[in-house]
Amino acid sequence: MLYYNADIVTMNADRHIIADGAILVKDNRIADIGKTKALKEKYPEEETYDFGGKLVIPGLIDTHVHLAQSLLRGCADDKELIQWLCQRVWVLQGCFEEDDGYVAAKLCIAEMLKSGTTTFLEAMCADRYNFSRIATAVEESGIRACLGKIVMDIGTYTDAAFAMHPGLIETREQSLLGTLAMHEKWHGKANDRIHVWFGSRTPGGVSVELFKEMTQISQEKDIRITMHCAEVEADKKYFREEFDMSPMEFCDHVGLLSDKTVLVHMVWIEEKDIKMLASSGTHVSHNPTSNCKLASGIAKVPMMLEHKVNVSMGCDGSPCNNDYDMIREMKLAAILHKAVSLDPTVMPAEQVLEMATLNGAKALGLEKEIGSLEVGKKADFVAVDLNKLHTTPSYNPVSTLVYAATGGDVDTVVVDGKIVVQKGELLTINEEEIRVQAKEHADALYKRAGIVNKPIWPVV
Amino acid sequence: MLYYNADIVTMNADRHIIADGAILVKDNRIADIGKTKALKEKYPEEETYDFGGKLVIPGLIDTHVHLAQSLLRGCADDKELIQWLCQRVWVLQGCFEEDDGYVAAKLCIAEMLKSGTTTFLEAMCADRYNFSRIATAVEESGIRACLGKIVMDIGTYTDAAFAMHPGLIETREQSLLGTLAMHEKWHGKANDRIHVWFGSRTPGGVSVELFKEMTQISQEKDIRITMHCAEVEADKKYFREEFDMSPMEFCDHVGLLSDKTVLVHMVWIEEKDIKMLASSGTHVSHNPTSNCKLASGIAKVPMMLEHKVNVSMGCDGSPCNNDYDMIREMKLAAILHKAVSLDPTVMPAEQVLEMATLNGAKALGLEKEIGSLEVGKKADFVAVDLNKLHTTPSYNPVSTLVYAATGGDVDTVVVDGKIVVQKGELLTINEEEIRVQAKEHADALYKRAGIVNKPIWPVV
Repeated sequence: MLYYNADIVTMNADRHIIADGAILVKDNRIADIGKTKALKEKYPEEETYDFGGKLVIPGLIDTHVHLAQSLLRGCADDKELIQWLCQRVWVLQGCFEEDDGYVAAKLCIAEMLKSGTTTFLEAMCADRYNFSRIATAVEESGIRACLGKIVMDIGTYTDAAFAMHPGLIETREQSLLGTLAMHEKWHGKANDRIHVWFGSRTPGGVSVELFKEMTQISQEKDIRITMHCAEVEADKKYFREEFDMSPMEFCDHVGLLSDKTVLVHMVWIEEKDIKMLASSGTHVSHNPTSNCKLASGIAKVPMMLEHKVNVSMGCDGSPCNNDYDMIREMKLAAILHKAVSLDPTVMPAEQVLEMATLNGAKALGLEKEIGSLEVGKKADFVAVDLNKLHTTPSYNPVSTLVYAATGGDVDTVVVDGKIVVQKGELLTINEEEIRVQAKEHADALYKRAGIVNKPIWPVV
Repeated sequence: MLYYNADIVTMNADRHIIADGAILVKDNRIADIGKTKALKEKYPEEETYDFGGKLVIPGLIDTHVHLAQSLLRGCADDKELIQWLCQRVWVLQGCFEEDDGYVAAKLCIAEMLKSGTTTFLEAMCADRYNFSRIATAVEESGIRACLGKIVMDIGTYTDAAFAMHPGLIETREQSLLGTLAMHEKWHGKANDRIHVWFGSRTPGGVSVELFKEMTQISQEKDIRITMHCAEVEADKKYFREEFDMSPMEFCDHVGLLSDKTVLVHMVWIEEKDIKMLASSGTHVSHNPTSNCKLASGIAKVPMMLEHKVNVSMGCDGSPCNNDYDMIREMKLAAILHKAVSLDPTVMPAEQVLEMATLNGAKALGLEKEIGSLEVGKKADFVAVDLNKLHTTPSYNPVSTLVYAATGGDVDTVVVDGKIVVQKGELLTINEEEIRVQAKEHADALYKRAGIVNKPIWPVV
């Protein structure tokens, strides 16, 4: 298929933007890329797809997603963390049954695809959500995913108040053997669209012994790891009080600092920690909306970038965002750090788009496959319609995308060479059906958990 | 017309949400409001409009808009303030000719209406933009507007580096007589949809004498004032160095502290200033996106709200936002202050919606007319479609609106009893036509100003 008539932000080494460009896709890869006129002449027999002058970018890469939490959207807005986590999020997640995990995954993936995300990293698939059914949702929907299988062996967090819901507790054996089993079953499946990772719980939910076992297996078997880290101040205190270490000293101690690890949030770290990230090649997933909404704080992203840490981006879950729209997330990443540093030149639109594409690919170990539009890479790309009121006029499409557009402006999405969204319509998931199912599953879930979620204001 | 089958967030004194509610509109006012069933029985002959189960809220009120800047969208992203303002924004604005102002206003109003804003306060209409043509754009489009006529008599800002573009400089006479003339001509016109205000330049652009004349006229003739204030640290320094006063001491000195004044941004103020705002009834317009993107800083909004200052919200202009979407603006207002205060309970969704409706109405002196959906008030309301992937499930419509929706989810907009947006389509402005015109006018404007706005990355 020859996709043509688009302004293409290639993200290649020279960062070329091809005006009136075209992309030739053979099977699931980019076979050629260049000007429309040249490619049309070169491939006169090829079937064509007219992008109608839209902007084309590499598929967005969300490096921190909680699929299951899509059913929990708005479950605990404006609440203290302990209420948010222990009385709502964990309780609801601990009551997942049967196909709740599958339906949640479908809802979340549908939202991601429609807003331009073509690859994501799931943080922690609990056994309760049914890993294989979630992998099936990925397979069916056409998205590309790295799925972290949960790793934990302790049921409490930093203190007793943060006790894990019993429905979510797993053992060392479930963690390690479960990951290996799912890796065996799913890694590389769906034409290599599915990868299986360790989805480690935060320190406090994992013993030092288990961390060391996991990081050793990670290196031996090339199974990558993602973990929440230094999200709230209590995390930093925990490392200091329990181990007399800084967050990254602890991660180093248990073997987590590695280019096979993506650490998420990373709000409560200092320059010394940042240097350890840089020298070890450890990746970071920055989640600005989540960090703001949960009042975790503001990560020192400009400092990380200065130290050449690979910082990617994530939307987190819908109780803490409450959407999975990477375009909206890019805007916040671009403007938030300007306010904090009082410098309007930090984190320009171009750098933020790199974080959401190239840096994401690198974090997932997929920089040779995705993250830019170049010959030989997998055909993951997104057409965004900038011919809207709120994106007019537009002279720099990158800054228009980051500062003015939303996921609602996405028109076409191609993953692994297949069109999954066309003219804003999902082709692989029945949108209306999944919305209705999700509502039914969420209703049943709240009932089972004994939680009532209702408006603050009186309903008459 | 009987609008029915909606969940109505009334914003009345009890904050009632009417499930399956209906609104009866007679002429331009709300004649009745209640349950669909009851109102259908009570008014069986009435023409009906089915909201299809959508969420209905009072029309959003944007208390800080630069209409003209819609043509300047993305004109200086990621640049230092002095480059942003003096080499781009002022230069382009200083080169407005003929109907540039009218076209910009139409583009901006179209975007606002489609994203649920029914009333706005224009900060500073320069003579160069042609006040009457802008008022005509308001009249034709059906939106409700308070239009500030620019007031200035000094061509430089806090220091010589911030010299105003000659094309924008106006005199004392233009300022005062111009406002009075426009007030005479337009105030109360279009069925009272148009109000005329003083749109004062920042201290530094206005002499103490002119400030005093303006504030005296404001009180005598009941002409309201809006002004940028304490936006950047240099503003605060200016008041201290030139007058040995805090920002609010200066405003008090020249008569600006009054319930007829809306001060915009208000980032660089202290608790003492905030107490002066509260005791004088002076209103504040909070513009979080603009403050972040321009690296102005983060306003102490939770402290202002604690002190009972009336804080409303604004999107500012498209060089510093880059959109005019109040729903997106609400989300940032709700999450930003949580991150800064490390408290997830500050600025809950409900409070932010109050800021964008009731507080906005109060800031404009229109609290008896708009801001809530109650019998006797003007019929300004917006239906938002929450039956989308990214808003499913939804248990508290207010938090879903603020945290998950965008202006792109707006379905129907009614202003002054007239439907101006229906199923997402503008009825009063030809969207495609204004988009094309805006692009042409922007292209010509850049050419005239000798400014090239192009992508940072190489276009091939």
